[in-house]
Amino acid sequence: MNFIDIIKKKRDKFALNDKDISYFIQGILEDSIPDYQISALMMAIYLNGMTEQETYLLTKYMVGDTIAFYQDDNFVDKHSTGGIGDKLTLTVVPLVVAAGLTVCKMSGKGLGFSGGTIDKLASIPGFKTTIKETELEEQIKKIRIAIIGQSTEVALADKKLYALRDVTGTVESIPLIASSIVSKKIASGNRNIVFDVKTGSGAFMKNLSEAEILAKTLAKLVEMFGGKSVAVITNMDSPLGHYIGNSLEIMEVLETLKGNGPSDLVELTKEIGSYMLTVGGIVKDHEEGKSIIGKLIDNGQGLKKLAELIEFQGGEKEVIADYKKMPQGAYVKEIYSVESGYINKINSQLIGEVSVRLGAGRSTKEDQIDYGAGIFIPKKVGEQIEKGELMGRLYYSSNLIDIGECEEIYSRAFAIAITKNNCEKLIYKVIS
Amino acid sequence: MNFIDIIKKKRDKFALNDKDISYFIQGILEDSIPDYQISALMMAIYLNGMTEQETYLLTKYMVGDTIAFYQDDNFVDKHSTGGIGDKLTLTVVPLVVAAGLTVCKMSGKGLGFSGGTIDKLASIPGFKTTIKETELEEQIKKIRIAIIGQSTEVALADKKLYALRDVTGTVESIPLIASSIVSKKIASGNRNIVFDVKTGSGAFMKNLSEAEILAKTLAKLVEMFGGKSVAVITNMDSPLGHYIGNSLEIMEVLETLKGNGPSDLVELTKEIGSYMLTVGGIVKDHEEGKSIIGKLIDNGQGLKKLAELIEFQGGEKEVIADYKKMPQGAYVKEIYSVESGYINKINSQLIGEVSVRLGAGRSTKEDQIDYGAGIFIPKKVGEQIEKGELMGRLYYSSNLIDIGECEEIYSRAFAIAITKNNCEKLIYKVIS
Repeated sequence: MNFIDIIKKKRDKFALNDKDISYFIQGILEDSIPDYQISALMMAIYLNGMTEQETYLLTKYMVGDTIAFYQDDNFVDKHSTGGIGDKLTLTVVPLVVAAGLTVCKMSGKGLGFSGGTIDKLASIPGFKTTIKETELEEQIKKIRIAIIGQSTEVALADKKLYALRDVTGTVESIPLIASSIVSKKIASGNRNIVFDVKTGSGAFMKNLSEAEILAKTLAKLVEMFGGKSVAVITNMDSPLGHYIGNSLEIMEVLETLKGNGPSDLVELTKEIGSYMLTVGGIVKDHEEGKSIIGKLIDNGQGLKKLAELIEFQGGEKEVIADYKKMPQGAYVKEIYSVESGYINKINSQLIGEVSVRLGAGRSTKEDQIDYGAGIFIPKKVGEQIEKGELMGRLYYSSNLIDIGECEEIYSRAFAIAITKNNCEKLIYKVIS
Repeated sequence: MNFIDIIKKKRDKFALNDKDISYFIQGILEDSIPDYQISALMMAIYLNGMTEQETYLLTKYMVGDTIAFYQDDNFVDKHSTGGIGDKLTLTVVPLVVAAGLTVCKMSGKGLGFSGGTIDKLASIPGFKTTIKETELEEQIKKIRIAIIGQSTEVALADKKLYALRDVTGTVESIPLIASSIVSKKIASGNRNIVFDVKTGSGAFMKNLSEAEILAKTLAKLVEMFGGKSVAVITNMDSPLGHYIGNSLEIMEVLETLKGNGPSDLVELTKEIGSYMLTVGGIVKDHEEGKSIIGKLIDNGQGLKKLAELIEFQGGEKEVIADYKKMPQGAYVKEIYSVESGYINKINSQLIGEVSVRLGAGRSTKEDQIDYGAGIFIPKKVGEQIEKGELMGRLYYSSNLIDIGECEEIYSRAFAIAITKNNCEKLIYKVIS
């Protein structure tokens, strides 16, 4: 078999078959196909697409060896395509575990303006994001919850492919995105998955129609692997909750599980949580699921589960009661509104950019994160603000940061007008 | 400037501008762009195409430094996209020089089933295909004709690009083919060019509509560089002349210039020769040009010019009178027809494949050529053949060649039927 013929096949809009894709992934793992040939194929896939069957085959061969110990219908995973202030994993997972599910989740680090669950957890003093397999098995048996960093041994082909796509303009391809996401899930033993596909200015998928195709592709792929899934398309035009930044988001998660969460975060927590319960087969319908999640917030069982998780993975449990034990920015810059009116828009892409500049996110994979850095947004879309009223607080620790520029970008993110816009929808569509 | 942004621009169907293309070619020359990024861009260009302006800019930056000494309106070049038995350069060029033009031609080596003019000339004992620039200048002054190998110093970016396209499935792209051809011509100082765009089974362009787009692109590019051109689309369904193979084709060229050429070769020689005279501005119309070429065959002036060329470049002049001085295959295999009827087709792709197997062409760039190897095709399309009559002669020198297989492929190239087909057209279209 000649790899140039495989490139030409895709270039000429023919579908690749089982042999072609197996040869391709094997070649990546064995380092026998040069990068310039892989990138030519990636561009041909980007431009000519892939059928459902091709995407399935690509995913199948990318899965490789699976971590087999925790395959059970009771296991449900959750995946978000990423957004600004997206701390849902940390509110939802303890709640659904408290409701009876088991979640053993591998999470990625954040890159660019969208944060990573693992970075948020790592901001808790002492918290370990890597655990030996035997200890992980023990933890799952005892408390039914674990959130760890993406293993470097899982879905190796994806790792290499992604690095190359990143530097050849072939990231934003739906079959490639979907196979990358699902292969890691299947390889880590999870078949039942709720997808949170975010769309809007602060998301990877900028428009609804693309988000919908991705959501359908993800749900279909899971089904082809014999799993169950729901894909929820949610709004990421403005940031989620009031806080952005790792330790700040942990505090907002704790407040939410204590019953004091912001309405958007609470609503999405109930929605996504309920779909996880549905997929896991422990509620009869979505309404029952939402009501259970609500009760587990009210009675503190979700908070208790998160506390167990933190303790089991070595984190300081005291942070739950005393937020001062969390890392904090050395400096605070307060920003005041220069006009009065209704907040009609908070551009989350710009907010994300400010958070990266403050040190809360990474520009490149090698960047160090300042866990205490971040943003407080006191008012949300739809609320009124007066001239001179507090519009934001920026937390940071380095003198090297051009805070004037951060203030300028932050202010630019706000659209304030005399008339009130209709409120933004939180959920656009549910695909199951 | 970031090269990923240039890739994304072309990927998203936007036109690249002067800065983008200059940055790209500069990056190739300085080795500052990794191959995997170049190949991603090549695939995006292959699939999304290039505008006339982009193709011009690409060509312009690929030209780089030009060999300046022989820029003159009297200089006319010829380029063929390659075919089986295509020896037209060697019949046409001496004739148009005898008619008053100057031709200083750089020719490539053959690769795959299509032969190269330089390989044919190199089959003449002693013939030098590389000449120092000062000697070349002297030769042009004295005899107005030179045919040398492609300089490695001309159009360096094209050389690197072509090598990468060859292994990434991005060769057959019209803007990339056209810029590659024209950049080498302009870089070697030629602005006035007659293109012979071949189409059919034995050509690079398998169908007429693609050949026409290439012909138009080539003619337009030359015009944008301030030159004059004619592009002739010619038939390459069956081989040209009776002989294929380097020394065999030199003999057929000599016979043609002696007035004994096969009708297809003679007709195309007159056609292409006349267009060169038109482009060079020394005839008033195409009919006058053809008639002049005809006379220069009849009076032996073309043969005399070829003899001068051979002598000046160190070749043994005796070969002109005595073909035994040319390399000859050690073995001959005669093939006889197994049926009677009209020859309706001779598939030139298959004939080309046999010639490569016999050693007359290269499968890879590193292959050595056997100058004496080749094929004699006694009968052409439209002629009658009897069962048991000679249908071909294969010349070769190595015992390692599977001559039975060569015979099988050769025979498969012939379609013999009871009824006679219409004869094949030699010229499909002329674009000027």
